[in-house]
Amino acid sequence: MSIVSARTAARRGDLLRLSSLFVRTLREDPADAEVASHRLLVRAGYIRRAAPGVYSWLPLGLRVLAKVEAVVREEMDAIGAQEVHFPALLPREPYEATGRWSEYGPNLFRLQDRKQADYLLAPTHEEMFTLLVKDLYSSYKDLPLALYQVQTKYRDEARPRAGLIRGREFIMKDAYSFDIDDEGLAAAYERQRGAYQRIFDRLGLDHVIVSATSGAMGGSRSEEFLSPSPIGEDTFVRSAGGYAANVEAVVTPVPADLPYDDAPAAHVEDTPDTPTIATLVEVANAKHPRPDRPWTAADTLKNVVLAATRPDGTRELLVVGVPGDRDVDVKRLEAALAPAEAEPATDADFAAHPELVKGYIGPGVLGPQGKQVLDESVAAGPTGDAAPTRPAIRYLLDPRVVPGTRWITGANEQGRHVFDLVAGRDFTADGTIEAAEVRVGDPAPDGSGPLELARGIEIGHIFQLGRKYAEALGLNVLDPHGKQTTVTMGSYGIGVTRVLAALAEAHHDDRGLAWPAQVAPAHVHVVATGKGAEVFEAAAGLAEALADQGVEVLYDDRPKVSPGVKFKDAELFGVPLLVVVGRGLADGVVEVRPRSGEAVQVPVDDVVTTVVDRVEGLLAG
Amino acid sequence: MSIVSARTAARRGDLLRLSSLFVRTLREDPADAEVASHRLLVRAGYIRRAAPGVYSWLPLGLRVLAKVEAVVREEMDAIGAQEVHFPALLPREPYEATGRWSEYGPNLFRLQDRKQADYLLAPTHEEMFTLLVKDLYSSYKDLPLALYQVQTKYRDEARPRAGLIRGREFIMKDAYSFDIDDEGLAAAYERQRGAYQRIFDRLGLDHVIVSATSGAMGGSRSEEFLSPSPIGEDTFVRSAGGYAANVEAVVTPVPADLPYDDAPAAHVEDTPDTPTIATLVEVANAKHPRPDRPWTAADTLKNVVLAATRPDGTRELLVVGVPGDRDVDVKRLEAALAPAEAEPATDADFAAHPELVKGYIGPGVLGPQGKQVLDESVAAGPTGDAAPTRPAIRYLLDPRVVPGTRWITGANEQGRHVFDLVAGRDFTADGTIEAAEVRVGDPAPDGSGPLELARGIEIGHIFQLGRKYAEALGLNVLDPHGKQTTVTMGSYGIGVTRVLAALAEAHHDDRGLAWPAQVAPAHVHVVATGKGAEVFEAAAGLAEALADQGVEVLYDDRPKVSPGVKFKDAELFGVPLLVVVGRGLADGVVEVRPRSGEAVQVPVDDVVTTVVDRVEGLLAG
Repeated sequence: MSIVSARTAARRGDLLRLSSLFVRTLREDPADAEVASHRLLVRAGYIRRAAPGVYSWLPLGLRVLAKVEAVVREEMDAIGAQEVHFPALLPREPYEATGRWSEYGPNLFRLQDRKQADYLLAPTHEEMFTLLVKDLYSSYKDLPLALYQVQTKYRDEARPRAGLIRGREFIMKDAYSFDIDDEGLAAAYERQRGAYQRIFDRLGLDHVIVSATSGAMGGSRSEEFLSPSPIGEDTFVRSAGGYAANVEAVVTPVPADLPYDDAPAAHVEDTPDTPTIATLVEVANAKHPRPDRPWTAADTLKNVVLAATRPDGTRELLVVGVPGDRDVDVKRLEAALAPAEAEPATDADFAAHPELVKGYIGPGVLGPQGKQVLDESVAAGPTGDAAPTRPAIRYLLDPRVVPGTRWITGANEQGRHVFDLVAGRDFTADGTIEAAEVRVGDPAPDGSGPLELARGIEIGHIFQLGRKYAEALGLNVLDPHGKQTTVTMGSYGIGVTRVLAALAEAHHDDRGLAWPAQVAPAHVHVVATGKGAEVFEAAAGLAEALADQGVEVLYDDRPKVSPGVKFKDAELFGVPLLVVVGRGLADGVVEVRPRSGEAVQVPVDDVVTTVVDRVEGLLAG
Repeated sequence: MSIVSARTAARRGDLLRLSSLFVRTLREDPADAEVASHRLLVRAGYIRRAAPGVYSWLPLGLRVLAKVEAVVREEMDAIGAQEVHFPALLPREPYEATGRWSEYGPNLFRLQDRKQADYLLAPTHEEMFTLLVKDLYSSYKDLPLALYQVQTKYRDEARPRAGLIRGREFIMKDAYSFDIDDEGLAAAYERQRGAYQRIFDRLGLDHVIVSATSGAMGGSRSEEFLSPSPIGEDTFVRSAGGYAANVEAVVTPVPADLPYDDAPAAHVEDTPDTPTIATLVEVANAKHPRPDRPWTAADTLKNVVLAATRPDGTRELLVVGVPGDRDVDVKRLEAALAPAEAEPATDADFAAHPELVKGYIGPGVLGPQGKQVLDESVAAGPTGDAAPTRPAIRYLLDPRVVPGTRWITGANEQGRHVFDLVAGRDFTADGTIEAAEVRVGDPAPDGSGPLELARGIEIGHIFQLGRKYAEALGLNVLDPHGKQTTVTMGSYGIGVTRVLAALAEAHHDDRGLAWPAQVAPAHVHVVATGKGAEVFEAAAGLAEALADQGVEVLYDDRPKVSPGVKFKDAELFGVPLLVVVGRGLADGVVEVRPRSGEAVQVPVDDVVTTVVDRVEGLLAG
């Protein structure tokens, strides 16, 4: 077609005939499907499982995917980001240079080629983008620059789950910005943030933007786009005053120090059989009552022993001290320790550290206090040798444990606790850690009110990488004064296949999918019900007429399938508008029914106009 | 945009500004680039190497790739093939079921996940397509069916070379047809064949369709689409009468048997120092002259010892007998032995087989004749034990060695050959093999005249798989009589990234690329030359006006780059039409110049119309 005719030719909508479309619906849920999107996408014939966390795409699924990708590309192009495409199969070296070859641990698919050279299947492409820009560009005049790709990524998840939500092969749009200075990065970040909002708005996907930690990526400012959903893996908080954060990113407001001049001296008491906070509080109130009010769990300091394993395999014990009324939140803990991974201390750990008396651990043997105790303990040993020194166990405190706070905590002896132990006077730690659980009603760190908790699916993540990758890989440009300067980068990802699943989670009922018109595999589902040739002729004519008007039509032309089965399939497929050509034809009417709405009878002559108007309305949102 | 407005809105062409486009041209050839397409695609900033045989795509390259993919998709859709998409990361089991897990040998990228389960990066997807159709379909009424995908494939080539032509990560369109019977398969094959012709015609890629062998895929009828090119890896033959075949697929016309009643008896003669055919012919003519004419190499029978290694690792010696005036063609040999791989016999092989006297090997110790000789040889051994039997070395003959042909060949003794050894009378073999080289002037097997040889790049391959995969994986459907019947399949591949390289090979000169308009990254390259603001204003206005008319424009708006550099870059990029806005502007003219043609001066007011007309003409072919 020539340019001129291509410019002005009216576009016809696709017309898919169910009699030949490669699809089969299932009446039963697949055995391994835990969530609605997985269940319905498989049952409606959009995807099929090929291996754990690895899916094949059928024609209907691929149509939705293409629409999601098109919106993402349009909005990336609109902010001047340029599309490139990197391999999925990559050599080890660049990832070694940034440390990620090992940091990714078992999440990385690694392989060797026939010459035993190491390769990986890329989980993200920071290194490759950085190196490509280094290859091509050398001056501040070349910046700002934003690049993106839509690409298949790989991550060897320990527990692939929920269908497309946590897969091992999945499609991501990843974008990167390159700037000469912080102001440039901040502006690039805002452009991407705006594009993300437009993308999710256009896709019909409700979303919340929350502050986030940057995980294994490094970097500073970081926000996640979450699609609120009870099946989401991310817990986030928000306040009425507008604060929103991923639970890992919530910063505990630090209370002011308390005066402790009039505080009593610490005193050790017998507290037999109190290995838990609940038993401790009970015994404390019974045997060592507080005059003004009963002791509560919040008066106790719980010291939790953990082991952190770094990507290089080294393992370190550490103790986290939190108010006894809060648990340690494993996700917050791991975010705080990343890229190290945490696990509870083992019996072998306790055996190797006799100073840790299970259930009665206190600051006295930990961190800054620990050194002396350890030395004495070793000196008192049976060998009589000169006491060797060994490092004390690292001790990290919840930020609420400020100087002046008083605690009941372990006395490092079986059946004994210390009372009125004052932080800052009687003990200190090696630092603080954000590891305690966040609870409904906790104050927002910005003072905007109490927090509520909700769950969401992470559909996008934007963050300011800063100079980490540029430094590791030597991406410098000449600045206006002729000096080499390190480029600062941003990283911006959308989980494209996960967005499709989040759309299915947000738009379905117990009978099937219910796509927004913007991403539905077709705009209209025409169903011919009945046996007479005139019904099929009328339905076929209508389907063609709608396609001629640019409407995308899924036409159920199957000759020997009952109306009941056709309607069940239509509800499963989830096309937003149903047009039923059947009994009413004798009276000159056709039924028009939204996927989740009331049917109306429309005179045959008006159907095309009515349907086009309705579809226009749906597409306009 | 609503359907109605989207239908009728005039489409604007993309406008790419070189000042911000992510591209850099190189004046020097990359060190590892052997062929023009590789050299120029890298130099013009279309691709960059990420690892051996693995490439990254820059914006210009990605635009060409998208156009090639779009044409492929349109023609696939036009013949009713439906698009699906499979993972690249696949579990071992389906490939184990068909034997390809091992048949692929070291060409397959294999890896394990964190649970030590075996996976591969798929080189082709026969198994997955077969299993998916088995999953969804069960009746003859569901057929015929054709499915396709455009997908990234992986092959661990021993020698990745020539840039995109033989890569390790590459894009393929692979399609598969599913039919109930041979007629259905034949019709599906013809539909694909037609679509392939239209695809390559539309892309502006000259191609030859040649008969082919089916390689490791199995199956029967098979044709390759080759783009003729001196750098092609495939040698093919054609005759003036229309025969065309891949050299591996050339079938040697078998001459009629010759009468040998009056042939003299075979006689062994001394032929000292004649380990080669040339020395043998010389000595034979000197010491044992033939009365009617001199002996030539064609009178000798050369017996070549080879070792074939099967995918399961087992290794077998075999001897191939060819007329002494022809060499063994390794590619034809490997095609004949596939999936086994062949190599010359080693010194160890000869040591283990003392009956093989290097340079003097004859049929007497081979194949059907070999058994007895071996037994005698062992019986005559020093141990005095009962002679053990061992299998004789397999002996395969060139099809020209028909009964009645007489040969000079090895007598299995140092310095001696046997004369007048008559095939069918004095020796037979275990079979024939198509391993001898094909030569210019050889007769076409269909009698259509002498063959000529040429080289080409394999851009497509279509073949009738038949029931191999359906049988191995149990793809049956109910036939009209209610009986289970095995589905018959066809497989149809286009190397999408290789097509792009073949286009670059076919369309370039020593100054750069010269794309057909259908696949060029833009239709028109507007160059502003000069320093005055009016030049840039006029050029920018022209670029916008052309884009408004639907023309895709690459606009060189770089302010401080010399005209010489701009023209060099333009020739490297290879956009089909150049529009130069510069000195002529003062006289009211702009220069319009095809990439490889004469410049004309066009009045400013006529430029848009002229350029649109020219582009229309180029797109029309």
